[in-house]
Amino acid sequence: MSVNKLGRKIPQEYADKYGLFVDQFDRKPTYRRNSASVTAVLPGETKLRDSIKDVIIESGLKDGMTVSFHHHFREGDYVLNMVMEEIAKLGIKNLTLASSSIANVHEPIIEHIKNGVITNITSSGLRDKVGAAISSGIMENPVVIRSHGGRARAIEMGDIKIDVAFLGASSCDEYGNANGSHGKSACGSLGYARVDAEFADKVVIITDNLVAYPNTPISIPQNHVDYVVVVDAIGDPNGIAKGATRFTTDPKELLIAEYASKVIVQSPYFKPGFSFQAGSGGSALAVARYLKETMIEKDVKAGFALGGLTAHLCEMHEEGLIDTIIDTQSFDRGAIESIKNNDKHYEISASMYANPGNKGASVNLLDIVVLSALEVDTKFNVNVMTGSDGVIRGASGGHSDTAAASKLSIILSPIVRGRIPTIVDDVNTVITPGQSIDVVVTEIGIAINPLRTDLIECFKGSDIPQFTIEELKEKAYSIVGNPEPIQYGEKVVALIEYRDGSLIDAVCQVERD
Amino acid sequence: MSVNKLGRKIPQEYADKYGLFVDQFDRKPTYRRNSASVTAVLPGETKLRDSIKDVIIESGLKDGMTVSFHHHFREGDYVLNMVMEEIAKLGIKNLTLASSSIANVHEPIIEHIKNGVITNITSSGLRDKVGAAISSGIMENPVVIRSHGGRARAIEMGDIKIDVAFLGASSCDEYGNANGSHGKSACGSLGYARVDAEFADKVVIITDNLVAYPNTPISIPQNHVDYVVVVDAIGDPNGIAKGATRFTTDPKELLIAEYASKVIVQSPYFKPGFSFQAGSGGSALAVARYLKETMIEKDVKAGFALGGLTAHLCEMHEEGLIDTIIDTQSFDRGAIESIKNNDKHYEISASMYANPGNKGASVNLLDIVVLSALEVDTKFNVNVMTGSDGVIRGASGGHSDTAAASKLSIILSPIVRGRIPTIVDDVNTVITPGQSIDVVVTEIGIAINPLRTDLIECFKGSDIPQFTIEELKEKAYSIVGNPEPIQYGEKVVALIEYRDGSLIDAVCQVERD
Repeated sequence: MSVNKLGRKIPQEYADKYGLFVDQFDRKPTYRRNSASVTAVLPGETKLRDSIKDVIIESGLKDGMTVSFHHHFREGDYVLNMVMEEIAKLGIKNLTLASSSIANVHEPIIEHIKNGVITNITSSGLRDKVGAAISSGIMENPVVIRSHGGRARAIEMGDIKIDVAFLGASSCDEYGNANGSHGKSACGSLGYARVDAEFADKVVIITDNLVAYPNTPISIPQNHVDYVVVVDAIGDPNGIAKGATRFTTDPKELLIAEYASKVIVQSPYFKPGFSFQAGSGGSALAVARYLKETMIEKDVKAGFALGGLTAHLCEMHEEGLIDTIIDTQSFDRGAIESIKNNDKHYEISASMYANPGNKGASVNLLDIVVLSALEVDTKFNVNVMTGSDGVIRGASGGHSDTAAASKLSIILSPIVRGRIPTIVDDVNTVITPGQSIDVVVTEIGIAINPLRTDLIECFKGSDIPQFTIEELKEKAYSIVGNPEPIQYGEKVVALIEYRDGSLIDAVCQVERD
Repeated sequence: MSVNKLGRKIPQEYADKYGLFVDQFDRKPTYRRNSASVTAVLPGETKLRDSIKDVIIESGLKDGMTVSFHHHFREGDYVLNMVMEEIAKLGIKNLTLASSSIANVHEPIIEHIKNGVITNITSSGLRDKVGAAISSGIMENPVVIRSHGGRARAIEMGDIKIDVAFLGASSCDEYGNANGSHGKSACGSLGYARVDAEFADKVVIITDNLVAYPNTPISIPQNHVDYVVVVDAIGDPNGIAKGATRFTTDPKELLIAEYASKVIVQSPYFKPGFSFQAGSGGSALAVARYLKETMIEKDVKAGFALGGLTAHLCEMHEEGLIDTIIDTQSFDRGAIESIKNNDKHYEISASMYANPGNKGASVNLLDIVVLSALEVDTKFNVNVMTGSDGVIRGASGGHSDTAAASKLSIILSPIVRGRIPTIVDDVNTVITPGQSIDVVVTEIGIAINPLRTDLIECFKGSDIPQFTIEELKEKAYSIVGNPEPIQYGEKVVALIEYRDGSLIDAVCQVERD
């Protein structure tokens, strides 16, 4: 057993393989970018195949290979389950599943794990039943959790070598030019899928909307695509567009949002041309609403918003408050409509968004990011992966990517949730190291990371209540008592890879009642 | 000395290295795509450099390396000469120049060749003084002529390994997101440059128009760019936008155009949704004008135009006669304006356009292409490279790419030019093999390639005068007499690489008077 700089225990075997986390910018790699295998397609040859079964066979998929999917269809996705069912029927075993993330709707993969079809997984997150199953120890090998930027890095550096990518697209032509912004199953940006298409050896586009050549705009170009399969439906539009533009009415969340908005406005980064990212949670949405008011009042317009986009930010773009949106994932119907209709709502790949190993990711130029947390500890480490019971239910997402790279990272978190403290001595699982977190905002006030002496200076005399992170933790513990330690088993069920490829934490098995 | 299937002599050393041309679709390669070297750019680091000199030094450019440029600025380009001058001043020698093409304006490279700065060249073409200098034998190593698709293939398969790409862009941000459609030096599509940016180890964007981040639309993404240098001017807008929309009034050219238009309309490919490409010459423009009349008359709209685009085709798009334009190079001011303003005038890379080694190029789906020729021979082989004096003055361009891949390739050519026959027994230099050419159109009528028995059947009873290619040649020779054979020297000054990487011809030194 090794212990990394954050004091997190990592089994020696994995410590040796991945290296231990040292610092958010410890690694500045130089390497030759990985690349795909190509077989030329000549005039007269067609890429259209009759069925998913046919295309699996023709792709050459074999035992032990790696398959990938994107999660732009969220809870409406039909593609992963459709394809994995056919793969299972064909008797192919021992696959690595390298989805950009895994949703509740992908529960059938539990059976594929039990049947030996899937024996390794890498993903940004694992929700509900799949997360619980993984935490209960159904896999022999630990799942590797990667951030969105970290996944792109792993693919481009060859840590993940995708043999066959099965990529759903709501609009596609016979040669594979594909986008997600048009068609009945539109999901908006195909930012994650673009990376897979570029680096996978075989690329299959699965569509329910075959259009005349050439299909534009082109998110995935034909020269990255081997096969096209048309199916009746690639997803449920309601599940795809999930996440309505709903503002929170919870007074605690509104208070957090108001404080966070003040932190932004009083920071040195709130000036014409500033950039920001805000997620899809209720509080984050409310922050954007408060921020908008101040932007109008003070006539401060943003240069760009990055994301992970919601309808609210797209409206701000349409109203002229945000010049450009660069979008790797469209969270809701409003964002999906916006990327279709607005020229300056521009799709980017997950690599351009956040890959720490490339020639410069967009997060590097981000001023402000507003993020959520399941837990924050007194070292400012953040957990967005495991619940207070230690069970996997979250996603790494772009959390550590944006927190590390932005100039001001703000965590929104109540001090307690129900009977559970949110500000704690030690988070169950570290996704983002404390050094990346600048300000924690709660309903009673904020805590600024002592590393940011400049911010502490800046906020002297601010009207926002300020505490140390220890004081916030004491408040939380005084309300709900000290948390019970979780009874973990010995078995490691997930490795938390930091965006640079090192291991920042490991998650052990939890025996559930 | 080896002799290929077309009877062309290839020195053994090069025959061994490249292989001999066999057939237009002889090679269907499977390979791992080449890739670039990457050094990560971390938050806080800048890509901006003060001068071209600084960036050459920092790029690590050394003796014996390969540098590349694009030719989207045509006769208005300042970038190549600016950069090569600094390289020469730094004393770097023995470079390979891998420009997408070389224009008249690049005459200073003659001095760089003589001084040993440049010792190898690969390019689509060589014009005027540079072509004449190469033909006179100033280089020890032969220039390698590649088609646009062939160049992309060579880069992606690793035959050309670019160490440093210096890419001019008329609009760019601090992180290197670049396009050619905006700014005072706009050149339209950056289709050639996109390939270099993706595969070169070091990529420098040179711009005279630094804009706020993020610059959209993004032709070259930041994650392919290492450095950005701002200069006063990257080109002369008049030279960049050269090629006015001027219709020919030459009665011979108009007659050729009228026959060509009839060939298209009477062919089986003229139907709703058809696709075509037509070049920028006077006759090609006139073909498009005649074709437009018939399209309106018969209510036949095109699915897409591919190119190499001119203003005339862009107007047809704006008038609803062409649904989509996919554009790897914008030939004139009208095309440059169009790609900026029309969503469905869409930029594509040279690889997507015509690379015969990728997962399917756009030319594969092209119905009709209209091409020019310096010479056509009785085997239908076409020369667009050397003049009747044997001197290099042309460019391979997309000629062999589109001719091979399209369903109907039409060559526009008068039977004589001045006192020189154009239809000959044997072309001086083969760029496109006869098997790729379907119909030769002259001012006295057409010749259909005997290989196309289907077309011969189709045109039985047509009102277009028809001849055998031998008859056309006899006509030409009867007017101007048999051409004098060219007195070539022994030295090979250029290798003509077919799009698949094999050698289709070699050009020898010519002693000029």
